[in-house]
Amino acid sequence: MKSYLKMSREELAAEIEALRAEYRKYQAMDLNLDMSRGKPCREQLDLSMDMMDALNSEADLSCEDGTDCRNYGVLEGIWEARVLIADMMENNPENVLLYGNSSLNVMYDQIARSFTHGVMGNTPWCKLDKVKWLCPVPGYDRHFSITEYFGIEMIPVPMSSNGPDMEMIEKLVSEDEAIKGIWCVPKYSNPQGYSYNDETVRRFARLKPAAKDFRIYWDNAYGVHHLYDKHQDYLIEILAECKRAGNPDLVYKFSSTSKITFPGSGIAALATSANNLEDVKNQLKHQTIGHDKVNQLRHVRFFGDIHGMVEHMRKHAAVIRPKFEAVEQIFAQNLEGLEIASWTKPNGGYFISFDGLDGTAKAIIDRAKKAGVKLTPAGSTWPYHKDPHDNNIRIAPTYPTLDELKTAAKLFSVCVKLVSAEKLYGKTEEKKTDK
Amino acid sequence: MKSYLKMSREELAAEIEALRAEYRKYQAMDLNLDMSRGKPCREQLDLSMDMMDALNSEADLSCEDGTDCRNYGVLEGIWEARVLIADMMENNPENVLLYGNSSLNVMYDQIARSFTHGVMGNTPWCKLDKVKWLCPVPGYDRHFSITEYFGIEMIPVPMSSNGPDMEMIEKLVSEDEAIKGIWCVPKYSNPQGYSYNDETVRRFARLKPAAKDFRIYWDNAYGVHHLYDKHQDYLIEILAECKRAGNPDLVYKFSSTSKITFPGSGIAALATSANNLEDVKNQLKHQTIGHDKVNQLRHVRFFGDIHGMVEHMRKHAAVIRPKFEAVEQIFAQNLEGLEIASWTKPNGGYFISFDGLDGTAKAIIDRAKKAGVKLTPAGSTWPYHKDPHDNNIRIAPTYPTLDELKTAAKLFSVCVKLVSAEKLYGKTEEKKTDK
Repeated sequence: MKSYLKMSREELAAEIEALRAEYRKYQAMDLNLDMSRGKPCREQLDLSMDMMDALNSEADLSCEDGTDCRNYGVLEGIWEARVLIADMMENNPENVLLYGNSSLNVMYDQIARSFTHGVMGNTPWCKLDKVKWLCPVPGYDRHFSITEYFGIEMIPVPMSSNGPDMEMIEKLVSEDEAIKGIWCVPKYSNPQGYSYNDETVRRFARLKPAAKDFRIYWDNAYGVHHLYDKHQDYLIEILAECKRAGNPDLVYKFSSTSKITFPGSGIAALATSANNLEDVKNQLKHQTIGHDKVNQLRHVRFFGDIHGMVEHMRKHAAVIRPKFEAVEQIFAQNLEGLEIASWTKPNGGYFISFDGLDGTAKAIIDRAKKAGVKLTPAGSTWPYHKDPHDNNIRIAPTYPTLDELKTAAKLFSVCVKLVSAEKLYGKTEEKKTDK
Repeated sequence: MKSYLKMSREELAAEIEALRAEYRKYQAMDLNLDMSRGKPCREQLDLSMDMMDALNSEADLSCEDGTDCRNYGVLEGIWEARVLIADMMENNPENVLLYGNSSLNVMYDQIARSFTHGVMGNTPWCKLDKVKWLCPVPGYDRHFSITEYFGIEMIPVPMSSNGPDMEMIEKLVSEDEAIKGIWCVPKYSNPQGYSYNDETVRRFARLKPAAKDFRIYWDNAYGVHHLYDKHQDYLIEILAECKRAGNPDLVYKFSSTSKITFPGSGIAALATSANNLEDVKNQLKHQTIGHDKVNQLRHVRFFGDIHGMVEHMRKHAAVIRPKFEAVEQIFAQNLEGLEIASWTKPNGGYFISFDGLDGTAKAIIDRAKKAGVKLTPAGSTWPYHKDPHDNNIRIAPTYPTLDELKTAAKLFSVCVKLVSAEKLYGKTEEKKTDK
């Protein structure tokens, strides 16, 4: 296909006319599709239905140490579930604290606690004039929403396929005591599907922050969410690396089974150093007597152990891999060579990151919306919803059916081409007017 | 029985000798009993085992409006569960927000949010020099623990069988803008089992606090937890009463199914005005995508409706009523007429409040502990764990078996008599020395 950048004004005009006709065809189809959120599809949810039989009225709801899971107590979560989740997180169960159903809630609470009571005896952030945060971009909108809600100043840090710009991070955290944290999705990142390379993780573990209460918020949401058996990204385990580097308390690591079993009914967890855990538990004991142990037991009985979970994730991959591949194929067929777009090809996770020409993301999303395809709002992948280039769009291929997704991806490609061609045509007009 | 207060020095000495012998018998029994926490017993937990069958792998996990409960979303909780819990709380489902498994967590989060972001646009409490709180005493230790953790100055307010001292409360809240809340367990209070009378509730609804962001923390933990079919305490519904009084936003009402189904795996809820709910949801949306809807659905399918829950609570009552009655009977047999103790005789809830002679509670609890019976630590029913009279002990009869409980109550009575007799004997000695 001929690059749009090399098209003459007349060629662009003809292209636009053809694309508008194509777009109208999609509009006539009266679509109602959603590529906006990283939600598992029905077929994925069905994979965990047997979990509903893992416990029944005949079951013994005691755990291995004899604790009756039905009653109050066990702040850290039951041991066998800590073992399972620790295996999933590649940590020791001693370092794992189980929560309720939402890792987002865990992250929110970590920040809320730091605001009201401070981290390990340091000044509560609510007593500080300024708290700042590093935000690799593009990133996860719900992360940015928490830090924005707390009035934390967010500083964007550019991402590459190896992870965020470590030189910039090292410089900033060592110089500015107001910087208290960084959002990381280190494996199959949201939205790019990038995984931090060894050097990145090693440099993270060796950060020398000016602030004693600086913590890396390591949201390993997609640790076992591979799309392929053979092509799996590998990530150095951060807690162990921090320990090796003499920085054992530097990181809070988050995970959950939200995209393994049921998104609303899974187990969330925090893995961190013994010191950090003690700090957290000293607060948590005032907040709750304990989380849902029956649900923890249900997960253990369903999976058995980590091998059961890995097997289970293969089934997820079998459902969503064709969706990722369909999007990539349709993008390749329709957009490759046009020099108006690039997109990531992840080995796991839940997203594809799409970059268009500068100043086109909003318009593309609007066009798609008007033809019945919902995308994550433009700017969502940036702090304050402000993408300075207005070019990044997060594609979430998992939720629609494969057929719906193919239609949506094709319509999306038409929107990309149309908006880009119109923009380029407008530029030729400007040039003309300039003359 | 002869009052200890009327016994001579010699009579007391003889009594002490007899009691010591009796106490040693209990010590020899090598008991290991727990009357410390308001936990349901195994038999009560067994009542909800059929809930484990309410959903299985063949079940349709969609709710009435078609939402797939397995997936993300529905911040407020699913509608049919809001209806069920609203019926339980005597509120409209529109006013009910469902949370995770712990109402304590909901209360903690209300205070945490007030600290970091303020209530309805008012100054966040972390920016204030001083926050104060009213604490009817004796009260619930975990309430006091939250306010203590946030550095809130707690002011004790005396309780009577009609509720807290309203004159004191009215005066304090109208005069002091630093007072931002009050802990209330209005029905079958913890630990007395008192229920606020009509006048108390009406005066609560008509409070004129100096602080705009003052809220009543109305922890209706035992709303449907009656011990008797005929003798049930009645409580005026506070939200409706506040509305009638022109104070619609004055109250946060909390409840949960912790002592209805499983303590760790129930549904907690907040009921409050539309304005308060909006304020809460504006925060909550940053904290979570939603709570466990599958568990909400499980509760709905198990109970059907409020009638199912009421029937279920009758079964709980049948299990624990004999325990309450056994304690009352043993106390009456062993302590009545001695003028050294009084105790409450609640129609519901989870506790009996015991008052001994001033300065005896710690010693009684120590004695019981040394004979193998664990009681709630002395002072727990007061802010900062400081009972100025050292005379109040919370008795939790539900968890031990009936036989264990009878033994524990008898041993407890022996400890009460022994400690009291020793104290009175000591006083006669002092008098003697004085001469």
